[in-house]
Amino acid sequence: MTKVAIIGTGPCGLSMLRSFEQAEKKGEKIPQIVCFEKQEDWGGLWNYNWRTGSDQYGDPVPNSMYRYLWSNGPKECLEFADYSFDEHFGKPIPSFPPREVLYDYIIGRVKKGNLKNKVRFNTTVMAVTYNGKNFEVTSHDKKNDKFSKDAFDYIVVSTGHFSVPFIPEYPGMKSFPGRILHSHDFRDAEEFRGKNVIVLGSSYSAEDVALQCNKYGAKSVTIGYRNNPMGFKWPNGMKEVHYLDRLEGNKAIFKDGHKQEADAIILCSGYLHHFPFLSEDLKLKTRNRLYPPKLYKGVVWENNHKLLYLGMQDQFHTFNMFDCQAWYARDVIMGKIKIPNNSEIKKRYK
Amino acid sequence: MTKVAIIGTGPCGLSMLRSFEQAEKKGEKIPQIVCFEKQEDWGGLWNYNWRTGSDQYGDPVPNSMYRYLWSNGPKECLEFADYSFDEHFGKPIPSFPPREVLYDYIIGRVKKGNLKNKVRFNTTVMAVTYNGKNFEVTSHDKKNDKFSKDAFDYIVVSTGHFSVPFIPEYPGMKSFPGRILHSHDFRDAEEFRGKNVIVLGSSYSAEDVALQCNKYGAKSVTIGYRNNPMGFKWPNGMKEVHYLDRLEGNKAIFKDGHKQEADAIILCSGYLHHFPFLSEDLKLKTRNRLYPPKLYKGVVWENNHKLLYLGMQDQFHTFNMFDCQAWYARDVIMGKIKIPNNSEIKKRYK
Repeated sequence: MTKVAIIGTGPCGLSMLRSFEQAEKKGEKIPQIVCFEKQEDWGGLWNYNWRTGSDQYGDPVPNSMYRYLWSNGPKECLEFADYSFDEHFGKPIPSFPPREVLYDYIIGRVKKGNLKNKVRFNTTVMAVTYNGKNFEVTSHDKKNDKFSKDAFDYIVVSTGHFSVPFIPEYPGMKSFPGRILHSHDFRDAEEFRGKNVIVLGSSYSAEDVALQCNKYGAKSVTIGYRNNPMGFKWPNGMKEVHYLDRLEGNKAIFKDGHKQEADAIILCSGYLHHFPFLSEDLKLKTRNRLYPPKLYKGVVWENNHKLLYLGMQDQFHTFNMFDCQAWYARDVIMGKIKIPNNSEIKKRYK
Repeated sequence: MTKVAIIGTGPCGLSMLRSFEQAEKKGEKIPQIVCFEKQEDWGGLWNYNWRTGSDQYGDPVPNSMYRYLWSNGPKECLEFADYSFDEHFGKPIPSFPPREVLYDYIIGRVKKGNLKNKVRFNTTVMAVTYNGKNFEVTSHDKKNDKFSKDAFDYIVVSTGHFSVPFIPEYPGMKSFPGRILHSHDFRDAEEFRGKNVIVLGSSYSAEDVALQCNKYGAKSVTIGYRNNPMGFKWPNGMKEVHYLDRLEGNKAIFKDGHKQEADAIILCSGYLHHFPFLSEDLKLKTRNRLYPPKLYKGVVWENNHKLLYLGMQDQFHTFNMFDCQAWYARDVIMGKIKIPNNSEIKKRYK
């Protein structure tokens, strides 16, 4: 029987589970599935966690979610085709729901079935290698401190790419007498009440973190953009200036000469595509978030067609795009879709 | 030629390097040595780093040092036998030096020679296995993203045990509207100026972190002890109460019924002996910090006498104890000390 490992049960991993469940409901014979989830529960980033740094087992905390996150896209753009918001909530809800409402929705679709018994929780995948015939997965059950090795025919990597922060250094950080953190470790804007906060970046995190700090009572919020300013009409107490040049004591000095006293620096400098558990021949390496290389149809690893990546693109559509990819991956695994050989692929995309 | 891997170049790894250097100076032929250091420079915890969480390569930050640390033991108790404070500084210095002075002293002993060229910096050891004949070490050069495999005859584990925090959870943490951190991520008491701070623990970290918060302007500092109070005469603004029972909103409620508004919780709950890179048969597992099991003379791994651990005990004497262990380990590696077989060891320690 075909064996499939799904690594990670965030939205992508859950889409993958759901896609197999739907096939099974139609009477199709699905492969044997094992999901590996390093957190205590499923939901990925949406499974909010107060922890930062490492968990109780010394394993890095993947979670980047903050307490007061609200969706920055209308829910209509991320609705599942097979499970509507109306079906879940039984009534219409607003377009921009907060974190907990979205979490409830994502989990609602999968929790009715028997999917949870396919998941090994608190289990970190330590290594995945390919021996020419199948994959060997080494995993660590953190709760019981037990290591296992299992063979699989297919691997689905659904570990996301908003879990491991990219943290650059600027001159003066070593002697800055305040707090420096990445938005990955931002949990609650209350922590910055009354503070002079510097936010570095100009993407979604920077916009949201900066506005939350302002809303929850930061004394001032200064955003340093690198390439292009967001250019909004900022509320009182906020401003946007050109990027950080250096810190001198507690002063932030920007490229445009602007100076600002600072209590905290929040780096919204993005995340790494980070797969330390995959052997080099299987590892996606990219800084291209729009369309990472070597993924046929954005999903199939060209060097090994039994390795599938979900959700590696930067996402305008998220949950429903994950579904498209998961349903596609399922049909590849179940042999309904044939992947052309690599020379054929190269010809098509030349 | 015998090949030795030293993992970690904190005080223990540096003692190990120094011990070989001293033998070489006396004209002895020393083994080939490769040190692996995951930080950019040597010094271990003493190599202060503003980073918390993960480094620029997505690798967990091992550093637990804070900016204003002063030695909590008199320097006379940690002086190297072969390199005195007087020799280093050229004049007498006070008994309780701050972090940077101690760092200067530790590094001073090793930086004159050619030891640095034995160290692979920015290189994380991913895996160590034993094949019955020698050890295979898989390492990751993070800067160049290159993986290597090397064979060694001996392994010295000098990675310390104050790098991976133990972080327990208490009821109410998930909804606590403030900051929760482990002392591992404590860098600067300035961050807590004007805040109501809860410090949980009663060992060195708790004592020092609590006093620093008070000194740098925290509004209040409440220490929760688990077993025995430290029982000092605390300065104004500080108190010591029985352990945390739960959080309710921003209120900390203690086992003795004491209630306190809180802006930040600092967990001084200690560290894990954590060696994810060692295969199970080589891995020291212990919560006993006074005298961990399976280490002959506190150094030699009883299941494999070519694996040596340095500094795994809880340290009243630190630097000079590391030296004793390193000199002993060196003589084991160089064949000057014979380790009895395990049945002999058992007989002796029965």
